[in-house]
Amino acid sequence: MSVTHSSDNSSPDSARSMAPLDLARRLIACPSVTPATGSVFDAMEGMLAPLGFDVLRTIDGDAPDGPVENLLAVRKGPEGSRHFAFAGHLDVVPPGEGWTSEAFEPEIRGDLLYGRGAVDMKGSIACMIAAMAELPTDAGTVSFIITGDEEGPARHGTVALMEHMAARGLTPDLCLVGEPTSVNRLGDMMKIGRRGSVNIFLGVDGVQGHVAYPHLADNPAPKLVRMLAELDALVLDEGTDWFQPSNLEITEIHIGNPAHNVIPTKAEARVSIRFNDLHSGESLSRMVTEVAKKHGGWSKPVISGEPFLTAPGAFSTMLSDAIRAETGIEPELSTSGGTSDARFLKNLCPVIEFGLNNATMHKRDEAVAVADLDVLARIYRRVAEAALAQ
Amino acid sequence: MSVTHSSDNSSPDSARSMAPLDLARRLIACPSVTPATGSVFDAMEGMLAPLGFDVLRTIDGDAPDGPVENLLAVRKGPEGSRHFAFAGHLDVVPPGEGWTSEAFEPEIRGDLLYGRGAVDMKGSIACMIAAMAELPTDAGTVSFIITGDEEGPARHGTVALMEHMAARGLTPDLCLVGEPTSVNRLGDMMKIGRRGSVNIFLGVDGVQGHVAYPHLADNPAPKLVRMLAELDALVLDEGTDWFQPSNLEITEIHIGNPAHNVIPTKAEARVSIRFNDLHSGESLSRMVTEVAKKHGGWSKPVISGEPFLTAPGAFSTMLSDAIRAETGIEPELSTSGGTSDARFLKNLCPVIEFGLNNATMHKRDEAVAVADLDVLARIYRRVAEAALAQ
Repeated sequence: MSVTHSSDNSSPDSARSMAPLDLARRLIACPSVTPATGSVFDAMEGMLAPLGFDVLRTIDGDAPDGPVENLLAVRKGPEGSRHFAFAGHLDVVPPGEGWTSEAFEPEIRGDLLYGRGAVDMKGSIACMIAAMAELPTDAGTVSFIITGDEEGPARHGTVALMEHMAARGLTPDLCLVGEPTSVNRLGDMMKIGRRGSVNIFLGVDGVQGHVAYPHLADNPAPKLVRMLAELDALVLDEGTDWFQPSNLEITEIHIGNPAHNVIPTKAEARVSIRFNDLHSGESLSRMVTEVAKKHGGWSKPVISGEPFLTAPGAFSTMLSDAIRAETGIEPELSTSGGTSDARFLKNLCPVIEFGLNNATMHKRDEAVAVADLDVLARIYRRVAEAALAQ
Repeated sequence: MSVTHSSDNSSPDSARSMAPLDLARRLIACPSVTPATGSVFDAMEGMLAPLGFDVLRTIDGDAPDGPVENLLAVRKGPEGSRHFAFAGHLDVVPPGEGWTSEAFEPEIRGDLLYGRGAVDMKGSIACMIAAMAELPTDAGTVSFIITGDEEGPARHGTVALMEHMAARGLTPDLCLVGEPTSVNRLGDMMKIGRRGSVNIFLGVDGVQGHVAYPHLADNPAPKLVRMLAELDALVLDEGTDWFQPSNLEITEIHIGNPAHNVIPTKAEARVSIRFNDLHSGESLSRMVTEVAKKHGGWSKPVISGEPFLTAPGAFSTMLSDAIRAETGIEPELSTSGGTSDARFLKNLCPVIEFGLNNATMHKRDEAVAVADLDVLARIYRRVAEAALAQ
């Protein structure tokens, strides 16, 4: 890890516009395919330092999943202030082919701002910064937990940032992640939870032989088939008030035996489980291992994320109020979809995700409605104010 | 197909020894890894022509499973004679590594003659020829049905020879295949039948999707798993007086999906069934297709051989008598093991397989007991005499 500090108010960026559209354009203009490094962090530091943030930039982790560039910015409020954190990522997925304009040359056409990261999630980060430019410094402590590796392995991003925070005694009271959670209209959905995810590798070892002499062999395939049939038939739960039922999918089966008259040596498979907070990666791994053993096989789990739930309450109400005030929409409180860095942040404090429309995320011609940027910045300011005033 | 004829009694080989050991050495000395061509057929023609055989040599079939060299030799007996056929192959499996002496340089060490094909089945063919050298020409009609492609695809070998026989109005009354069927001592086992064999390719087509949104996808893996579990649990039969129970083995399962969070598009498998004469390749294919359809899948059978059974009776008794007379052993009448060209010859006439000890077949240092060659030649002569005298 290397660390540099900055709180230079004379940054050449300080005189520039703090309008969310301008901030978004400046961030998009820095290519930052995951893992993000260098210029996009320089740009963000140049936006935060003039607002009074103490910016810590770190390089964390080693190969193969690192090193990763991260940024932690803190603006301390008066002694005894509450602490509100924004979290997000500056890295983006590769642009792919077929863009109308260049992916890293932000361009406004009609009502939309185009560019990779426009909604996931440089646009959201621009709104967070713009919101904080408007927030009085004495409102309370505000921090930015920003990684350059959310779209990649994510092993040395938010996790490392949380260690840096712990080392500095920084513990937010509430955390808002800027993932694009809106579906049809800005404000129609926030995520108060995410399912956990575990991939489990399975296999059965047998004894090779000729199909004409099966008594001299031990075919692993029927054992694997029975194991998978039993796993597929498991009812993990019926869902909860806030989560859909946990679900197991068989994603791979492999024997790799080209010889028609040969009983294979081994048979392998992989299942993927998305699970709610009735389970943990550990409890499911144990359950699957027992089924595997029963059928003479082995299992090797890889837990990629535990579930989180910030039960509906004060925080979600604050956010709903802010959204309703700015858009007139009553947001749905959802726990659907894939994983995000909230799976880590939940260990810090209650966390909710809310951001731009996700219709174009990870696609070509990713775009955000220009008008939504101003609205989101105002929502972010409202919720930060409410959270710090509690 | 090209055809040449020979019945030249002045062949330079005609003066040579007709002792089975010498004949075996001459055949082994002609390298003939499957598919066999040229010299090994020249050698056999040179042995048969002096004995009064009319030798037809043909090249049958096209790529990819041909062309294949074959030999059909006939010595006609008096008008109205019975017709006894010997069948076999001159091709051999590749020698592989680690031989003590050269695989195609026959060598006697101790009591054994070493060389690729010593037991499977140039040794047996040598014994057939030696037996016919001793049999009076007026005993009846004798033929040799010899292919150069039994160890390979076997699509243009014995099948083509049977067509050549049909075109010439040649129909044996009985046929003896010289496969090495003895297990511990020469004479301890003959094969009066073989199981059939069918490989069935199976698959389920689905709809790809993300594991977090299974309702938008259609995972083919659980359907394939349930299909295979049902197929594996089938009891095809309990066996018969002469056959062990039919058996299904899962030999391959393939999805080929490297992405941990993706529900795959398709899932495929292959099963191999070895079956007795209570079934046909067709009836089993229909049964498996019904199970595949029930689970939303498809099936594609490849029948490699139907079962045959020459029920114990006059022919097996003749052979048992000959074996007992020469060895004192009562042979077991078996239907075990893999397939042979008898799967085709059964359409011609009753067929039984009997030959040398199979302990070293397809292995390095393949070898035959020198003494067994003389005994087997005498057994072959006895059974031919008995068959023609009926």
